[in-house]
Amino acid sequence: MITSALQHRPESEDCFLYDADHLRLRLHTAKNDVAAVTVIFGDPYWMITGADGRSTFKYTTTKMVRIGEGETQDYWGVTLTAPYHRLQYQFVITGVDGAITLLGDRGLREDSEMMRQETANYFRVPYLHESDMVRTPDWVKQTVWYQIFPERFANGDTSNDPVGTKTWRPEDHPGREDFYGGDLQGVLDHLDDLQSLGVNGLYFCPIFAASSNHKYDTIDYLEIDPAFGDKALFARLVTAAHKRGMKVMLDAVFNHMGYESMQWQDVLEKGAQSRFADWFHINQFPVAPFNDPTKGEGEPQYETFAFESHMPKLNTDNPQVQDYLLTVAKYWIEEFDIDAWRLDVANEVDHGFWRRFYAAVKAIKPDFYVLGEVWHSSQPWLNGDQFSGVMNYAYTELLMDHFLTHKQTAKQMVARLTDQLMLYRDQVNQVMLNMLDSHDTARLLTLAGDNEALALQTLAFIFTQTGAPCIYYGTEMGMDGGNDPDDRRPMDWSKLGGQTWQAVAALIKLRRKYARTLGQGSTKLSVTKHGLIAVSRKGDHNVTAYFNTTGQPVSLNGEATLAQNYRDGQLGPNGFVIKAD
Amino acid sequence: MITSALQHRPESEDCFLYDADHLRLRLHTAKNDVAAVTVIFGDPYWMITGADGRSTFKYTTTKMVRIGEGETQDYWGVTLTAPYHRLQYQFVITGVDGAITLLGDRGLREDSEMMRQETANYFRVPYLHESDMVRTPDWVKQTVWYQIFPERFANGDTSNDPVGTKTWRPEDHPGREDFYGGDLQGVLDHLDDLQSLGVNGLYFCPIFAASSNHKYDTIDYLEIDPAFGDKALFARLVTAAHKRGMKVMLDAVFNHMGYESMQWQDVLEKGAQSRFADWFHINQFPVAPFNDPTKGEGEPQYETFAFESHMPKLNTDNPQVQDYLLTVAKYWIEEFDIDAWRLDVANEVDHGFWRRFYAAVKAIKPDFYVLGEVWHSSQPWLNGDQFSGVMNYAYTELLMDHFLTHKQTAKQMVARLTDQLMLYRDQVNQVMLNMLDSHDTARLLTLAGDNEALALQTLAFIFTQTGAPCIYYGTEMGMDGGNDPDDRRPMDWSKLGGQTWQAVAALIKLRRKYARTLGQGSTKLSVTKHGLIAVSRKGDHNVTAYFNTTGQPVSLNGEATLAQNYRDGQLGPNGFVIKAD
Repeated sequence: MITSALQHRPESEDCFLYDADHLRLRLHTAKNDVAAVTVIFGDPYWMITGADGRSTFKYTTTKMVRIGEGETQDYWGVTLTAPYHRLQYQFVITGVDGAITLLGDRGLREDSEMMRQETANYFRVPYLHESDMVRTPDWVKQTVWYQIFPERFANGDTSNDPVGTKTWRPEDHPGREDFYGGDLQGVLDHLDDLQSLGVNGLYFCPIFAASSNHKYDTIDYLEIDPAFGDKALFARLVTAAHKRGMKVMLDAVFNHMGYESMQWQDVLEKGAQSRFADWFHINQFPVAPFNDPTKGEGEPQYETFAFESHMPKLNTDNPQVQDYLLTVAKYWIEEFDIDAWRLDVANEVDHGFWRRFYAAVKAIKPDFYVLGEVWHSSQPWLNGDQFSGVMNYAYTELLMDHFLTHKQTAKQMVARLTDQLMLYRDQVNQVMLNMLDSHDTARLLTLAGDNEALALQTLAFIFTQTGAPCIYYGTEMGMDGGNDPDDRRPMDWSKLGGQTWQAVAALIKLRRKYARTLGQGSTKLSVTKHGLIAVSRKGDHNVTAYFNTTGQPVSLNGEATLAQNYRDGQLGPNGFVIKAD
Repeated sequence: MITSALQHRPESEDCFLYDADHLRLRLHTAKNDVAAVTVIFGDPYWMITGADGRSTFKYTTTKMVRIGEGETQDYWGVTLTAPYHRLQYQFVITGVDGAITLLGDRGLREDSEMMRQETANYFRVPYLHESDMVRTPDWVKQTVWYQIFPERFANGDTSNDPVGTKTWRPEDHPGREDFYGGDLQGVLDHLDDLQSLGVNGLYFCPIFAASSNHKYDTIDYLEIDPAFGDKALFARLVTAAHKRGMKVMLDAVFNHMGYESMQWQDVLEKGAQSRFADWFHINQFPVAPFNDPTKGEGEPQYETFAFESHMPKLNTDNPQVQDYLLTVAKYWIEEFDIDAWRLDVANEVDHGFWRRFYAAVKAIKPDFYVLGEVWHSSQPWLNGDQFSGVMNYAYTELLMDHFLTHKQTAKQMVARLTDQLMLYRDQVNQVMLNMLDSHDTARLLTLAGDNEALALQTLAFIFTQTGAPCIYYGTEMGMDGGNDPDDRRPMDWSKLGGQTWQAVAALIKLRRKYARTLGQGSTKLSVTKHGLIAVSRKGDHNVTAYFNTTGQPVSLNGEATLAQNYRDGQLGPNGFVIKAD
């Protein structure tokens, strides 16, 4: 047995309360190296005194199940209960070579009844505190998100168009500084269309006053950008969305501020004398922006997002800054009843601020959703005190590396996706945001080489996964587009109700019909002997799905609830079958 | 290469700020399986655009060093800096079999320049926030603790002796309910003796009003137990200790309350109508205590510490209880200037409470020390937001399993101790409390089979380790004693200044002389080819120590700064040599 690969971390994604009464354990072993795992467990204080006066620890034994196969590791899982809310446990591991070992808190031990009585080597859950349990909002597990880039979704009010607004031409390749006049009235006008599509969560890119078309350079977090509308209109929009059962998520850019903000302008003008001097990270006064990107490597006078001189980084460790940003965070919930914040560049802001932020928004709305923008693995933020979930690029890019580019095989993909799922508690995986594209990436169809069947197959895959799927505006219209800013073309409304639209709507309908199973059921990923990617989800229903990425037709039996390129028992290239029962 | 054993966890003990500018990384590999590890790293936004218009990630390369060898794993370490406070990094690992792999955030990749440019696979430290850094109090790293069980240390005032106080006979085997009259005046009277011994931290078992002799069943957290003295006396004691450069740590029992407390008595009397009904975890009213220990397994009417009916568990998730306990926590700091809290049964109290507790005490005294009683691995409490350190039983019991009982070999011990050190950030290991015995265990000398040389050798070992050593009262007098209550005999003052006392004082003197190296230097544990346990500490000085646990004399060269059973180049059984330069 490869004992160096045995891994278990108490009170983490390897040991967590799933609900008030159920503790889930995971154990990592080397791949295909272990035949069976048993967990032995009991109340740490429950000792039985025998006739000889010796006390022995009374334990229960339960088998663990192999719940996933990763790149180099197998994962074993079990769910336990504890009548007195206390547990100690260790693992009895049997290798495929027949070797048996105990794994506990102080390492490996030979298995024997004497060693099982060495209670110091048990892992401990000292007390199962429901208050320490990681909770995630249930509604997100039933949500299909739709991401709106407001400047390009629809122009509902030409009276607020910026000077120089261009004609709304979906075939345009927008320039970095172009404006097309999209606004909140445009969203309100099309709410019925979004309802027909079936989405029930609206994720807005920033809508606060800012200079650029993308609004990530906030001037004033407490004002709607005048080119998008005003607060009365936004209030109507939220109400209208809620009336349709749609949740509303806004985008908060708290890592940095816009160059034109009052606060930064004050620093530029008054230098160290500015009352906002400590709002930023300034290395040297007076501050003059460094505009020469080739000099980024030098000694920047102030810290910025990336090396963007027009996005000075906020000092979120400053209590004044914290208080200001928390005022903003609370304002839009208390006054406009929004349901979620998406947090831009969330990984570069300090944890201390996010803890205050999370406590503040949860105090207002206990089922509020906090979504962090983090492109890499995100364990430090997902322990129930900072974010509910993150934008799951680490998951979706891995699957795109197979479906779209074949950079990795189906088996590699399945293994690596399993590794990703094992980074987090189950209730956290259920509220990750799974998107295949966004305002920050090329569009799915372009990444799929303009192969629409391939794009839809990939989209169908994320609809079968744990985590809430998110559609970037225009995907349903079959829009393509390269990297930013080409991914931000004006919406092509001429395709409303067309073939792509219908295919996407069908996926959404299926996801929502089986929302409990697809949102909270168990997940098993594998590759069939004929090379199909198989997804098995178990919950209220069983949902099974097959994806053909082999380039060849593959035989497959059975009825499909939803399918593409599937006929006469043959699943064609880029095809998929989803069966629900 | 055993790739399934490769392990690295971002933002954890594997990746942490050691000070504002230095990031330490650790990588786990299978033991003796890897020949070399290199870390490649740079600023995530620092891309160089080449003549061909392609941008490439500019990285730096640094070799990692094997910093420890565990039971099944080797540990590799490196310290990095980041000019823009941002880093991404991955590992290039070369196996002893010549295989080379990249390990990054999304798993293993074949090493190639193309793969090194796949920036999505880098681990990220998005921003090095000093505010998120785990800080531990520097003074603890210079401290030798002395644990006082007040009822048995010294009787300085017979006027406050409880009814039925027994004669002070160190050779007694105290009964569970006995009183001997020890008190705070007794401690004050002997402060000079403790100063001669050399200790500079006093750790008091509970001193608040309680029924028992051990005072773990608190009646009133805001009163000194009358048999121990009063607040004026305690204030004098703290002042006198501080004058001698000694810090003062009190013991807080916040997991449960005493049966006789006003709050619990009110619940017993008024049942569900008591205003303290929600202060506890009550399953059924009216509450009658379950006194029959054989019925512990049934349906207890209320939750308790272990199955102790006279120790009802506090509901520390109740904000009222939290506020009350925080008042207590702050009172003894603000009014009496104590320096540390030791937290009894700390692992069974919810994390949410400890986070509030930590913030509250740190707001008063930024270098306050918070010590949790946790007998098992303690990662969930040691991330800078709950405890500074824990009572390091998990470490000391492992070394006693070799020194005292030979349950494990020297090699096993050294490996398992290394595994323990690798569970925590370096600055956390430096403030763990390393004790070999306490009021909760049999005494060291008894555990050593009354072999004084062996007891002193084991004590000498913890004095060479990272973590603050702690002496249980009477160790310096050569006292023995079995499990509780026999470990709580009246102090044997007749041995003051005797041979054992001198040996212990010499160890303390050495520890304090080389406090910076022994407190904060690097640590390497190994076993020499002749079976000696070797400890190498590097810092301002080099401290090297050898311990002979083989039962045979072993040749060893060189001068000793402090030694036992060492003469003529021979280190005898139970001997040790400590060399400092």
